Amino acid sequence: MAGAISREELQLAARNHGLPLEALRFEVTPVGLHYLLIHYDIPEVDPAAWRLQVDGLVERPLSLGLEDLRARPAVEVVATMECAGNGRARLEPHVVSQPWLEEAVGTARWRGTPLAPLLAEAGLRAGAREVLFTGLDRGVEGGEEQAYARSLSLADASGEDVLLVYELNGAPLPPQHGFPLRLLVPGWYGMASVKWLARITVLAEPFAGYQMRSSYRLRREEGEEGVPLTRIRVRALMIPPGIPEFLSRARVVAAGRCVLEGRAWSGEAEVVGVSVSTDGGTTWAEAELEPPSLGRWAWRAWRFTWHAEPGEHELCCRARDAAGNVQPLEPEWNLGGYANNAVQRVRVTVAA
Amino acid sequence: MAGAISREELQLAARNHGLPLEALRFEVTPVGLHYLLIHYDIPEVDPAAWRLQVDGLVERPLSLGLEDLRARPAVEVVATMECAGNGRARLEPHVVSQPWLEEAVGTARWRGTPLAPLLAEAGLRAGAREVLFTGLDRGVEGGEEQAYARSLSLADASGEDVLLVYELNGAPLPPQHGFPLRLLVPGWYGMASVKWLARITVLAEPFAGYQMRSSYRLRREEGEEGVPLTRIRVRALMIPPGIPEFLSRARVVAAGRCVLEGRAWSGEAEVVGVSVSTDGGTTWAEAELEPPSLGRWAWRAWRFTWHAEPGEHELCCRARDAAGNVQPLEPEWNLGGYANNAVQRVRVTVAA
Repeated sequence: MAGAISREELQLAARNHGLPLEALRFEVTPVGLHYLLIHYDIPEVDPAAWRLQVDGLVERPLSLGLEDLRARPAVEVVATMECAGNGRARLEPHVVSQPWLEEAVGTARWRGTPLAPLLAEAGLRAGAREVLFTGLDRGVEGGEEQAYARSLSLADASGEDVLLVYELNGAPLPPQHGFPLRLLVPGWYGMASVKWLARITVLAEPFAGYQMRSSYRLRREEGEEGVPLTRIRVRALMIPPGIPEFLSRARVVAAGRCVLEGRAWSGEAEVVGVSVSTDGGTTWAEAELEPPSLGRWAWRAWRFTWHAEPGEHELCCRARDAAGNVQPLEPEWNLGGYANNAVQRVRVTVAA
Repeated sequence: MAGAISREELQLAARNHGLPLEALRFEVTPVGLHYLLIHYDIPEVDPAAWRLQVDGLVERPLSLGLEDLRARPAVEVVATMECAGNGRARLEPHVVSQPWLEEAVGTARWRGTPLAPLLAEAGLRAGAREVLFTGLDRGVEGGEEQAYARSLSLADASGEDVLLVYELNGAPLPPQHGFPLRLLVPGWYGMASVKWLARITVLAEPFAGYQMRSSYRLRREEGEEGVPLTRIRVRALMIPPGIPEFLSRARVVAAGRCVLEGRAWSGEAEVVGVSVSTDGGTTWAEAELEPPSLGRWAWRAWRFTWHAEPGEHELCCRARDAAGNVQPLEPEWNLGGYANNAVQRVRVTVAA
């Protein structure tokens, strides 16, 4: 593995939570095992006093309480969410930020009200092109004091599964997932699904705030304009088989039949296959892919039966989607350390 | 801060979860914000097939299902739990293991059935002295393959608040907290509260397994017998005031009246006071301590009004308990990096 992690990165790793990979066995991730990336602090919100403002280029600005939103038509979407920084700590040269290995993912049942009809009720004025979402979480980043805020094009914001979410897995949103209300943009990296929503503002132009202009862009060099991150790249992860060593997490597997299992997802198109290698990527075989029982935006389960022979092995899994995307074998470096969907490699020792 | 963190430690930090310190504002920690230290993997348990075995030096060995345990008298205890390794990453020389700063803590409403009457029903045989608790979680540690297992003296196991817990905060135990059943030993570091309980065995002698003999002992040197860790040392933590910088977590506070708040606890005796310093420990003043509304085993809230003047400040809080224990100003090093309850130091910049 690459080099050491600084104390500043440790502070981030200690407060942001990853999915322990054995929790891939749950098709819907239990609360407390879903990944969390929280830029600033979890804000304190009084739900009785909280209002969502809808303003900007609209005919009728709105101010909605939580009960107003709960009274609107409700939709439940099961969606896999992944942090744009997942895989960052596997990159070389090292990129300093939240040091995810590959655990920044989770799948939840998100319940809320669709955004598009609410924007239609507010009435878009001439020139409306973009929708800005502003959270209650405040901090300093890149030298700028800010509330976390990101925008979507009007077309992206009008997607039928774009929701204003107030429930996760059948219960009110927990504080750490954006209570009382968050945006959900299924298929996009998590940065788009703004938590602790306070305000939705219709704009004539894309928003040029820090989280749009400076963060969440694929760049090779400083100063480059770069490409904004949007949809989640295809990825498969495996439940590490056998049992772990506490400190090194090295895995020990019993010889014989061993069922390798995991999940695969892509925000760009449906997952169409997962292949598995048990020799570090030299040879590959096709895994069995389960039907997409949870809908378009959720991960799909896969399994592969391995006949484990004594010795050292490197297990890999590699997903591909209907748009022709396939996971790279090696990381593709970029300045922000984003979207590294290189194949997972799990080293195991099969006992004699 | 001390030096760098290795990749092995990062793997641990990425799967074990800390309490983001702003979550100290909740008197009972929401699910998903409580700390988690999981030695091996979260085991998969079929609750219908699961049984708790009670055996060893008992007259009538028992085999109990979850419904049998739920049918027994139920008690709810609010208890603060802390990892014995909390504070480890603040020690120098560096100790390699889960690199906690100070976030390995949480408070939950634990509901279950008292252990002592269950042991009485099983009937202790002559020579019964110790009770061993074995979990379903398996791994390798110190070169030994093992299920996580720890023992308590019969006296400690018979404490009236020692529970077999099946609910956390009013809902079934989540997988990561020991579903379907765990032990709760209020006031002790978390290692005693064995998760995913499978077996309770009454013994004639203290158990000499890895987690008793090798781990969880205060030692200055290898080979020393050391002192076993038991009760949680006194500690106060503060909600870092103001707003954070994303990467460094440096805090910016507005000038003027600033209420510093936090919580304090001790497993050894009741907390009797918290003092606060806003000048890095040169001078101290007494904080206001709230009544122990959640019972003996839960943390207590404290608050202190600070008149913040522009400049750089180091804020500290320091608790003391009824047994005369007070937090040290500097860490007390030991080989395993345990029980570091040195005062928290929060650096803030007050804007002009």
